[in-house]
This record gives sequence, structure tokens and C-alpha cells, in this order.
Amino acid sequence: DGSSVESLDYEVIENYAYREEQAQRGKVYFVYQVVVKWFFALLIGIGTGLAAVFINISVENFAGWKFHLTFKIIQESYLAGFVIYVLFNLALVLSSVYIVTHFAPAAAGSGIPEIKGYLNGVDIHGILFFRTLIGKIFGSIGSVGGGLALGKEGPLVHTGACIASLLGQGGSTKYHVSSRWLQVFKSDRDRRDLVTCGCAAGVAAAFRAPVGGVLFALEEVTSWWRSQLMWRVFFTSAIVAVVVRTAMGWCKSGKCGHFGAGGFIIWDISGGQEDYSFQELLPMAVIGVIGGLLGALFNQLTLYITHWRRNYLHKKGNRVKIIEACLISLLTSLISFGLPLLRKCTPCPETDAASGIECPRPPGMYGNYVKFYCGRENEYNDLATIFFNTQDDAIRNLFSAKTIHEYSAQSLLTFLVMFYTLAVITFGSAVPAGQFVPGIMIGSTYGRLVGMFVVNFYQKLNIEEGTYALLGAASFLGGSMRMTVSLCVIMVEITNNLKLLPLIMLVLLISKAVGDAFNEGLYEEQARLRGIPLLESRPKYRMRKMMAKEACGNRKVISLPRVVKVSDVASILRSNKHNGFPVIDHTRNGETLVIGLMLRSHLLVLLQSKVDFQHSPSPCEGSGIIRHNFNEFVKPATSRGLSIDDIYLSSDDLEMYIDLAPFLNPSPYVVPEDMSLTKVYNFSASWV
Amino acid sequence: DGSSVESLDYEVIENYAYREEQAQRGKVYFVYQVVVKWFFALLIGIGTGLAAVFINISVENFAGWKFHLTFKIIQESYLAGFVIYVLFNLALVLSSVYIVTHFAPAAAGSGIPEIKGYLNGVDIHGILFFRTLIGKIFGSIGSVGGGLALGKEGPLVHTGACIASLLGQGGSTKYHVSSRWLQVFKSDRDRRDLVTCGCAAGVAAAFRAPVGGVLFALEEVTSWWRSQLMWRVFFTSAIVAVVVRTAMGWCKSGKCGHFGAGGFIIWDISGGQEDYSFQELLPMAVIGVIGGLLGALFNQLTLYITHWRRNYLHKKGNRVKIIEACLISLLTSLISFGLPLLRKCTPCPETDAASGIECPRPPGMYGNYVKFYCGRENEYNDLATIFFNTQDDAIRNLFSAKTIHEYSAQSLLTFLVMFYTLAVITFGSAVPAGQFVPGIMIGSTYGRLVGMFVVNFYQKLNIEEGTYALLGAASFLGGSMRMTVSLCVIMVEITNNLKLLPLIMLVLLISKAVGDAFNEGLYEEQARLRGIPLLESRPKYRMRKMMAKEACGNRKVISLPRVVKVSDVASILRSNKHNGFPVIDHTRNGETLVIGLMLRSHLLVLLQSKVDFQHSPSPCEGSGIIRHNFNEFVKPATSRGLSIDDIYLSSDDLEMYIDLAPFLNPSPYVVPEDMSLTKVYNFSASWV
Ligand SMILES: Nc1ncnc2c1ncn2[C@@H]1O[C@H](COP(=O)(O)OP(=O)(O)OP(=O)(O)O)[C@@H](O)[C@H]1O
Ligand SMILES: Nc1ncnc2c1ncn2[C@@H]1O[C@H](COP(=O)(O)OP(=O)(O)OP(=O)(O)O)[C@@H](O)[C@H]1O
Ligand SMILES: [Mg+2]
Ligand SMILES: [Mg+2]
Repeated sequence: DGSSVESLDYEVIENYAYREEQAQRGKVYFVYQVVVKWFFALLIGIGTGLAAVFINISVENFAGWKFHLTFKIIQESYLAGFVIYVLFNLALVLSSVYIVTHFAPAAAGSGIPEIKGYLNGVDIHGILFFRTLIGKIFGSIGSVGGGLALGKEGPLVHTGACIASLLGQGGSTKYHVSSRWLQVFKSDRDRRDLVTCGCAAGVAAAFRAPVGGVLFALEEVTSWWRSQLMWRVFFTSAIVAVVVRTAMGWCKSGKCGHFGAGGFIIWDISGGQEDYSFQELLPMAVIGVIGGLLGALFNQLTLYITHWRRNYLHKKGNRVKIIEACLISLLTSLISFGLPLLRKCTPCPETDAASGIECPRPPGMYGNYVKFYCGRENEYNDLATIFFNTQDDAIRNLFSAKTIHEYSAQSLLTFLVMFYTLAVITFGSAVPAGQFVPGIMIGSTYGRLVGMFVVNFYQKLNIEEGTYALLGAASFLGGSMRMTVSLCVIMVEITNNLKLLPLIMLVLLISKAVGDAFNEGLYEEQARLRGIPLLESRPKYRMRKMMAKEACGNRKVISLPRVVKVSDVASILRSNKHNGFPVIDHTRNGETLVIGLMLRSHLLVLLQSKVDFQHSPSPCEGSGIIRHNFNEFVKPATSRGLSIDDIYLSSDDLEMYIDLAPFLNPSPYVVPEDMSLTKVYNFSASWV
Repeated sequence: DGSSVESLDYEVIENYAYREEQAQRGKVYFVYQVVVKWFFALLIGIGTGLAAVFINISVENFAGWKFHLTFKIIQESYLAGFVIYVLFNLALVLSSVYIVTHFAPAAAGSGIPEIKGYLNGVDIHGILFFRTLIGKIFGSIGSVGGGLALGKEGPLVHTGACIASLLGQGGSTKYHVSSRWLQVFKSDRDRRDLVTCGCAAGVAAAFRAPVGGVLFALEEVTSWWRSQLMWRVFFTSAIVAVVVRTAMGWCKSGKCGHFGAGGFIIWDISGGQEDYSFQELLPMAVIGVIGGLLGALFNQLTLYITHWRRNYLHKKGNRVKIIEACLISLLTSLISFGLPLLRKCTPCPETDAASGIECPRPPGMYGNYVKFYCGRENEYNDLATIFFNTQDDAIRNLFSAKTIHEYSAQSLLTFLVMFYTLAVITFGSAVPAGQFVPGIMIGSTYGRLVGMFVVNFYQKLNIEEGTYALLGAASFLGGSMRMTVSLCVIMVEITNNLKLLPLIMLVLLISKAVGDAFNEGLYEEQARLRGIPLLESRPKYRMRKMMAKEACGNRKVISLPRVVKVSDVASILRSNKHNGFPVIDHTRNGETLVIGLMLRSHLLVLLQSKVDFQHSPSPCEGSGIIRHNFNEFVKPATSRGLSIDDIYLSSDDLEMYIDLAPFLNPSPYVVPEDMSLTKVYNFSASWV
């Protein structure tokens, strides 16, 4: 369905109207432009920070109520507790899927592939609408609060991008403020810069990782990068960090309700392992390889399942989507409540009072050592500790360095298999869903498994299981998403332990290399499936021998003469959907010459305004007055612009002529026909 | 002196010989190429890591001996101690300046502007020679060990770049191994990628900041960046981190001599301030502004002084350079030994045994509270603690959070003024010199001053002076070098305290903004002075209205016909120094057509080999056999290639013809004459 996809124009169209405009405006306007851009970076930072805080507090509170209530009831009856638990989850998931299906279809999924597409120059309809923003925020509260195997980080990135785009166009397209202020953001490129800022802000807010946000925008999202933009993105991230920190400080005083303070995922293991010996590089390599394999498998399975969903299931309408989400919710509740029942409880270890970890933890509080279906007083259920908990808490428990031998290998393995399956099944259902947190869950489980094995094998107790869990998490994300530098920085920032940096780097390199042997990264695969053409990070071998000519096919080019009859323009515009037409002129001695490129949208503006129509078919050399200013040519922010069918042309109009010379773009980039594709590729990668 | 500067060719020249070559080589060659590139990334990492360890151990040992000896002697006589101190410093500096002037002139200075130039496409003669590498390593041991106001970080970046470049060409140009292996690195672009890796490795090794290294290469050095390269650079940095860490572990056992362990600058203040309140944002902004002002002033002063040196002083020959360096060394010794004598000693504070800081420290050891010219037992000299110490130790002391009220405002102010002056004077003398460490020294001094003021003003003791010192350091570097993201990450990595990240970000933003109001960054200014044309990070306002035509001037283009007489080629090549010639052909109906671009170097290869000469002046359509393979066209690594005067052409040869069609580059990027400069600029920024 390439029809819903349209390229953004990343070059500034330099027609005479534009040049006129630039020449009129002085230095003051230039300064003003810079100030407005920075002010918007500030606004994006604040907006995204607040959105993140809102989502977090909501999720934590819903999850808090849920577990509190369930724990209270299971003191009396496990069955009643189960029913409450299932209903609570179902209600939240239902609200989420309802919002998405009936209100904001573009809010489903993580949104990162789409944003990546947008920043690479592909505009997908509806991806940055106001309703998408609302759907994303409330939908992800429902889906994450409802305990599904998905995270809120991907949606936050999308949220940031929406906020940025909406700010840039002055609100929703329906009710937008067409303030003079916003005239600064009128080229696609300026809008793209804003969205880049928003995307970085989203990551910065989701993981409390400002540098990671900048790098994510850089590595994962943008093909082309100017250092000027980098600085602005950096500023936005810093603002987000300050906003989130302030809000967290405010929450510490208990004003945010239930689980308020535990919300933001910052798994502080700064007290964790600091030293490592050479022998440990082997288990780390093993973790890297496992991560690569499981990550690639995850990408492949989710690809199949999304493909199937798109082509069969979701074609049947919204009701199917809702039923599907509810079934997944039921299954998830059943597994997370039911499986721990099958495990025997473990007696509590001798607690170290200094560590501050209680065993079992008080019911309804977050922490380690969940007491669930245990007969005696001092017992806990290790499977419930990971399963019957919010995901953030589960990860904190898995990363925890202070709780050696908390989990049995059997429980970890059960959890790994079940959660992996759930994550694959959940992927692609019609709710907002991120893959970071599930990835971290999966990775840290097998990481901890390897860690347990190493601890038992080497008999060295200074190697901590929590550290291996962290490396496992990094390896799975590396094997699935294939980011390197940004992921590494994000992992370091969320764990707050710089000393593990070289280890994380090595594990990531291995897992990405292993994963690359099988398929592409998660986002690339998903983008391809959705028909979003992304430039690959490296031209394929085969491309080197192809020519641009071959790739374009040898179709006949539809061109326009310099002075063209209005009726011809109208019929050409009606007969095809091309967005650009070369304009051809004849020199005195009969040579034909391409004098520039005319965009469909600009032709439509000319047809609509009619002021440039003339009666004679000869060029209008003398009357060099341009009756349009540049603003009229500004494309609307979303891809649906004017259509030829919207324009009424009288039969008099149709008999008139237009001289296109003042309006065409005299210097589009020309790709010589026999340039090889590798070069065209490098070329386009640089200008999108 | 633009004559010593030549552009690198960053597009791969796609003539027929190249395409033939690509077509013959199969997938195996492609894989082989990738493997070789990664292997070289590994080698660069190991090489740069070892070089860094070597420089560090040497510097630490020389400085160790020096201070040990001096402290021993001043127990008897201060005068004798002074003489020894001066002579020791003089000997080291003399060795450094001698190496630079007589052996490796390109090793003077930091080398970062030149490397930056190289990676932006400007090849400066001698910058990546083997002798430059040697000169840089030993020269910086001398200059840093000799106590001058400069650092070893800039030179390490240059060292990394040299190692990378030499590896890529198989050793020095004189004795190079022309192995078949290295044929992979035969385009300028592959070489540039290697140097980028080397540059990142240098930063990673200098600061033990692997992520900082990647970002430095990204932000400061390269204009264009592919994510494939990013990954390789990341790998190199990780290798460096492992190598340095291993060497440090080995040194811990005492095998590295004197000061071994204290060498690498990692100012671990992870125990420092974690929390900050809103009121503190004001003093932080003040620090940012001071940093911007002092940094811009530093750039301006060093610009004047370098200008003067280049145009007057250093024109007079090597002897003047040597005398100059010796005088600076004498002055530095005099100030650092003499000034503390004028200060009164301070009684030691009640030491906290738990902190592990002794007062006064044992003589000849590194640490705080240097006892220097003090009468009583429990006294220390606060000026000597910063001045009469290695710079690494001085910075550690300034950053130290545990030593409140160690310094008096008077001492800090004296140090600031004197050291700033010394740093300005030293800049540009003929020794290898980095500006990072002096910048950190200056910045942390005024940072600590502001910190003292704040502590006294707000009367809050949980605000630590050491934190302000760190922010001061960041602000000065931001104000002078104008990096943002990479500098921020480097600061965080060296202080090992992630919690300060948002503060560092804000301070950097302010100081860069203030500095930008006055002049360009240190490296840009220096590059400009040296005639290295760098693309600015943002096209200037004025450029928007210029046309490429105007910028190039309306000179006549020298072109070649498709089939050209050898004598014509020779005379054209002799008559000018242009590197590219458009090749023109005539179609049957008399139109002229530019069919491609022929490089000077390729013409020279054709003239030298003579195999393609033909007797008839008609195109050789039939005999499509190309007698050259692509390797013959590979440019030598440095800019001096073949010259027309090296080629002997007999009078028979001169009468023959060459058909250029198979050798020309049929698709160079064409810049339409009326494309505005902004676009040309964006355009070139993306392909260099
Ligand atoms: N003037 C033209 N004459 C003939 N074919 C054209 C012309 N313009 C475009 N095409 C063909 O139509 C297809 C789509 O062109 P279109 O104008 O939609 O491109 P675009 O909108 O600039 O790019 P995108 O579709 O990525 O947004 C291309 O495959 C191209 O080969
Ligand atoms: N074929 C030509 N005919 C006329 N002028 C030329 C020709 N080629 C280059 N010039 C002029 O000579 C100057 C230097 O050209 P040169 O060939 O040295 O460029 P280059 O080597 O490709 O680039 P750089 O000097 O940056 O390495 C340019 O200012 C250009 O205007
Ligand atoms: Mg199209
Ligand atoms: Mg030149």
C-alpha cells in the first residue's frame, strides 16, 4: 500500500518567489528565525517531559491499585483475587484498544518505524495528528497498566514527535492557530528538524537518558545531520531531564499517589560489580551470541505474525482487533497469575538488615521476594516475584545485585519461554506498544541464567548475577533493534554505572553482528512490511552494478513547456499522480533545454489563484512582477494538500496561458542517467 | 599559504576501469573487504591504546622523578632544589622542541585542526607521516613531562590518526609494505574512514572515554557520517578501553615505576554532589557566562599570538623556536616554583581519617595538601598544591569534594591569572601541545572560586566546591572549543558521575552561546589561520544571496576534447595546476556535450604508461579492451603524486592521440551555475 506514503521535499525549493522573499528579509528576520527555533526546542522539551511524567504517574497508579487490591483479596480467596485481577487488566486493555480502533488508528504499535520513515523523508498519513497524540498517551496508559507484555518507551518517542509536529504547525490541522510566528516552520526541512527534537526528547524522557536521546535521534532516526541541529536536540534533551527531575522531586513528597516514586525506569545498579577478569569475557560473548540469536528470531517471528495480522486478521474490521486484544489480555493475566501457583515457595534467605530488602516484602508494596500462595510465614514465590509485578519492578529485581540466589533456574527458564511467547503474540495488536521493556525483561532473564551458571561454575562470588542480567538485556536489544552507540549510552544511563561501559559495548557488538547475519533490525523489518521505503544503512552489493536508468525504468517523462495552456496543465494533472514535471524551453536555434522542475503542488496553487494567467502564449519577460509571495506555496503539514478536483476552472480560464518561468525550481538535483546506483544512493542519503 | 593544501577526492571515481573491476570481483571480495576493515579497526584500537599507555607512563615517571628529587633536595636547600627543578624541566622541553624542529615539524601544536581539516577533505603535507607520529609521541612526553602549561590529549588524537593512516598504507611511505592486503584502502574515502577511527581512538585513550571518543569524531571532526562507519568507530573505542584497562591493571602491581597508577586522567568524583536545588541554577549560569567570556578571550589571544609567531618569530628559523621554548620553560618553572614561596602556609584542617587524605601529604607522593616552604609540621601551602604538582594531580585536587576550604580565594585567583597567561603564551610554540588539560585547569579554578562564593553566600554546606570546579572546567572548554555533546559525554566519563549530566549540559549550552557571540571555536580559528578551508557548520547569512557562478568567478574553463593529442595534454598539464578537466565531445549534429571529468592524476598515469596511445585521431569504438586495471589509478596516500615533469615523452609519443572516453568519470556531481550557494554548500557538506 505505497499509496498512503508520500515523500517529503527536503530541499528548499529555490524558485524566484523564494529568492525574492529571502532578499527582502533582513538580518533581523534571520535572528528572529533562530530565536523562534530555540523557543520551540524549549517548548518541545517541556511538553514531552510533562507527557512522560503524566503517563508514568498514571501507569504506576493503575498498577498500584491493581496489585494492592488483588493482594488484599487473595488473603481471603485466590479465586476472587484472580477474577478482580483479570477484570482490572481487561478493563484497561479494552479502553486502550477502543481508543486506538475508534479514535486514533495511527496510534497502534510503537510508532518508531513510522517516525523513522518520516525523518527519512516518507510521510505516512495521520502519523502526526493531534488525535494520534491523544490516542498514544491514553492508549499506552491502558496497555501498559493492563499488564501486557509491552512497554511505554516506544510510544513516548512517538508522543514527543507528535508534540513537536503539532507545535510546529500551531495545533491540530482542524483548529490550528495560523499565527505569523509559525511561518518559520514552513519548509519540510524545518518541520523535520522539529520532529527530530521531539524524538530525542521522547527517548530522553522515557529512559531519563538525555545523551541517549540525542544519540538515538542521530543513529536510529535521521539520515542526515547538521551540527547545528545536534545542538538544538541536545538542548531539548537537557530541558526534558530538568523537567522530569523536578516532577520526580515533587512526587517524592507523596503527592503522586500510589507507586509514584518507583515509576521512571532507572535501575540504579551503581553499587554493582565494578571489576571483571579476562575469563569472564567468555560468558559475556556467550550472552552476546544468545542475544543475537534470540533477537533475530524475535524479529522474524514478529515479522510473520504482523504480516499475518495485516493481511488476514485486521482486514476483518475493528471488532476483531478488539476481541484479539482482549484475548491476549486474558491469556497474559492467566499466565502471570496462574504459573506462580504451580511453583513451590522458597524459604527466605537470612536477610541482611543493612541492604534494606525485606523478605517477604509487605503486600501491596513494590520490591523483591513476593509472597504468593505460600503456606508458611517466611517464604516467597520466585516466579511471582518476576511475573506478578509491574515490569519496572521485575526488571529492578532481576538487575538487583544484592539478591544472590533469589531465583531458581527453573523459574527463570519458565519465565523466559512464557514471556518471549507473550511478547511475540502481543506485538502488532492494536494497542500502543513499545519493545524496549519486554526486550529488557527477556534479555535480563537469560542473562541472569548465564550468570547463575557462571557463578556456580567458576565458584567466584564476586561475579554478580545482576550484572549478567544487565548484559543480557543489552544483548537482546542489540540483537533485535541493532542500535549500537545510542543503545549503549541508554543502558549506561539507566543503570547509572559507567564502569560497565566497555562490557556493554562488547556484548552489543557481538549481538548485533550475530543478528545481522540473519535479518535486519526490528524497526527496519517493520518499516519494510508497512511499505515505508527506508534508505538502508549500506547500499547492497547488487546495487553497485545497476544504473539509475534501469531502476527508474525507461518510461517516458511527462514535461511541460515554459508557457503552457491552462487546459493542458489541468489535463496533465488529472491524468497522472506525478509530483514533479520538468519544464522545457527552446532556445532560438531550436535546441531544447530543461530549465527547471515544477512541483504539482505549486501548479495547483497557480491554478487556484488564477492571478498569473495571461492571454498570450508568449513569455512575460517585461512584467517581472511576481504576484505571489512565498507563503502561498508552503505545503500543508500533512500529505493531503490541494487536489486538482477541488479547483474550479471556467472555460475562459482554460483558454489562458501561464508562464511557469518565475515559479519553477531552477536547480533541482539532476541525476545523470548513467550514474551508478551506489552513488545516487549516497547522494540521496545526504539530502533527505 | 594555500599551496600546501589540496582537497581529497571523496567520491569514488566511477570510470569504466572501476566498473570493470567491480564487476569482476565477486561476493567473496566484498566480504574480504569488510573483514579487512574490521581487522584494521582492531589494530588501530590496540595501537592507539598502547601509545596512550606508553605516553602516560613516561610522563608520570619523568614527573615523578622530578618532584621526588626536588622535594628531597628542598629539605636541605631551596635554591639547589630550584636549580634541579629548572634543569629537569629545561632538559625535557629542550628534547621535545629539538625533536619537533629537526625531525618532525608537523608534530608541533595539537594537531586537531589539521586532522579536522583532513577529515573535511583537506590534505596538509606531512600531517600523517611516520616521523610525525614519532615526533608527536616523544615530543609530548617531553613537553608535558617538562611541566609546560599544555596537555597530552590533543597530541594523542593526532597520534591515533597517524597510526590509522600508517596502518592503512602499510607503513611509512618510504619503506611501505605494498601488500595486496591493503588494496582495500585505496580510495580517499576508505583512508578517511580509517583516520576517523584513529581519531576516536585517540580521544577514547586520552580521557578513557570511549563514548566520548565516538562522539568527538562525529561532532568535531567529520562532516559526513554513515552509520556503518559509526559502528566501526564504536568498536575501535571499545578496544581502546579494554587495552587501557588491561594496562592499568598491570600497572597496579607496581611494575610501571614511579607514579604509574595515577596517570590516566580519570577524576572520579562519583562520591560528589548528587542533588542540587533551583537556586543553584543561577551560580551555574554565572559560571557558564564566565566560561564563554574567558574561552572566547582565550581563542582571540591565541589567534593573535599564533599569527604573530607564524609571520615574524618562526620565520627566523629553528634556532628561534628552540630559544623560545626554553624561555617559556624557564618562565613556567620560575612561576610554579616561585609563586608558592610568596604565600603563607595554612595549618592543616582536622583530618578525617576515613577520607584517606593526609595533611600534609608525604613528600614525593601525589595528593592534596602539599607542604612547601612551611615552617611548622602540620601546615601546607595551598598555592603549591595546585602549582607545584603534575597537572593531573592538580585537577584531582581542585575537583575533590572532600577538601572543603582547602584553597584560599587569593591563591585561586593568583593561579588563575598566572596559568591563563602561561597557557596563552605557550600556545603555538614548537612543541606538541593539547588545550584540554590547561582548559580544565583554568575552568576548575574559577569554578571553585564561584563555588566558594556560593558556599559563603548561601551558607549551605551540602553544595560542594568540587562540583563547581567541574562545572567551571566544562564551561571553559565549552567557551573555547565549542563542542557540546561530545564534550559533555567526555566530562561525564572522566568524572564518572552521571548525576551531574543535566548541569553540565546547561553550563555547556550557556558557555557555547556566549562564546559564539564573539568568535569561532578554537580549532576553527586555528584552522583558518593555517589556511585550512573548513566548511562552517552553518552557511553564513550572506551566502544565501550569492550564486555559485559568482563565487567561482567567471573564469574560462579549460576543457579537453574526447580524443586528444598527447602534446596538447602535456602542454595543458604544464600550463596550469587544475586537478580536473571537463571532457567535451561533439554529437553528429554539432552540439557540444560534456561527457565527463578527467582528473589530472589519471591523465598523468595515462601519459606515463603510454599503452593507450593510438595513431589515429578517431575514437576507438571497436577495441573496447581496457589495458589498465583500476589499481594503477590509485592515488598515493599523500598529496605529492606524479608530476608532469617526471614523465619523459619522446617526440613520437607527442604526435600520438589518446581516447579519454574509457577513463573519464562520467558522472561527477554537476553544480548548475545558478544554484544558490547555500544549496551548493549543503550539497558539498554531504559528500566531503
Ligand atoms: N514528469 C514525469 N513524467 C513521467 N514519469 C514521472 C514523472 N514524474 C514522476 N514520474 C514517475 O512516477 C513515479 C512517482 O513519481 P512522483 O512524482 O510521485 O514522485 P515523488 O512524489 O516526487 O516521490 P514520492 O512518490 O517518493 O513522494 C516515479 O516512479 C517516476 O518514475
Ligand atoms: N578545467 C579548468 N578550467 C579552468 N579553471 C579551472 C579548471 N579546473 C579548475 N579550475 C580553477 O582552478 C582552481 C583550482 O582548481 P583545482 O583543480 O586545483 O581544484 P581541486 O584540486 O579539484 O580542488 P582543491 O584545490 O580544493 O584540491 C579553481 O578555483 C577552479 O576555478
Ligand atoms: Mg509520489
Ligand atoms: Mg587544487
